Amino acid sequence: MIYTSEALQQLVEEFAALPGIGRKTALRLALHILKQPREDVVKMARALVNVKDKISWCSVCSNITETDPCVICSSTKRDPRIICVVEEPSDVLALEKTNDFKGLYHVLGGALSPLDGIGPEELKVGELLKRLPGEVTEVILALNPNVEGEATTMYLTRLLKPLGVQVSRLARGLPVGGNLEFTDEATLSRALEGRITL
Amino acid sequence: MIYTSEALQQLVEEFAALPGIGRKTALRLALHILKQPREDVVKMARALVNVKDKISWCSVCSNITETDPCVICSSTKRDPRIICVVEEPSDVLALEKTNDFKGLYHVLGGALSPLDGIGPEELKVGELLKRLPGEVTEVILALNPNVEGEATTMYLTRLLKPLGVQVSRLARGLPVGGNLEFTDEATLSRALEGRITL
Repeated sequence: MIYTSEALQQLVEEFAALPGIGRKTALRLALHILKQPREDVVKMARALVNVKDKISWCSVCSNITETDPCVICSSTKRDPRIICVVEEPSDVLALEKTNDFKGLYHVLGGALSPLDGIGPEELKVGELLKRLPGEVTEVILALNPNVEGEATTMYLTRLLKPLGVQVSRLARGLPVGGNLEFTDEATLSRALEGRITL
Repeated sequence: MIYTSEALQQLVEEFAALPGIGRKTALRLALHILKQPREDVVKMARALVNVKDKISWCSVCSNITETDPCVICSSTKRDPRIICVVEEPSDVLALEKTNDFKGLYHVLGGALSPLDGIGPEELKVGELLKRLPGEVTEVILALNPNVEGEATTMYLTRLLKPLGVQVSRLARGLPVGGNLEFTDEATLSRALEGRITL
């Protein structure tokens, strides 16, 4: 494609490098930026760099934070007896949205995946062990319901149980608002297995 | 949602303000940015501001450009006898991709839309008339095949014909790679109407 402006071409390439954004969407976004007032574009540019400059990792839970320890770890309103282990900072956000969990978190930074060269040393497993048992009575393993997440759950269960803390995992079953007819067999098996007496 | 970082929240809001990007995608993009090396993020931020600082509008064809007149208007390899009238700079890019048009362009900046308060004064119609007839022999109206584009085509045809230039429009018909069975009636009518003798 022949661009009449090199600056536009560069911005299209920057947008197209983002995950899930193709060249057509990138061009649409770049032309949108071109139509915005300069101060709004500067604000967006500053927000990008700020994310790199202001955010670091909490030395306790390894979640992203601007203060150390993070607002969750340093909060007096959270229950320090329960630690919920997740893969990524986005999982913390998802759980916080439920407003149902009042304990602390621990972000592993991924899940075990030997084929990709990700073993326990690549994850924040050592940092998790350092927090245990202390006043912790329960560890909830909230990993993704896929092969890597399952493997990590198994691995951590074996590691944590001898420490004398209760280890639990999230329930598997029908998603709320879902449809029994269109639920896959594996999920349905888990829903049957975990049925609840009324 | 409770963000543990204000900088992250701000970036999510900036991304979510882009067209076609929802809050979930915005969060995914922001977390992607967080994982990138700082110099890459700075490069992207600079590309954003550059687009505003370096790009202006060509005084001849009203297309986006970094030089005035733009590379197309100032090229000696283009045929100045044909002007192709389009709505937006992105339409110029689409036509340039075909490599089939060697004339000049004129970017209107939109199409007539009385309901949105867009009349001929809001478009670069006066600038188009100033270029005619001169050495121009043909004006191709390449507006979008929708109501506003049709209305603009009609309006410009009536305005340009008395100037003694040939006025043409893009053909309507079956899109290449399309399917007769699933083509809408309006397109099929136009395809029949514009059938070509073999």
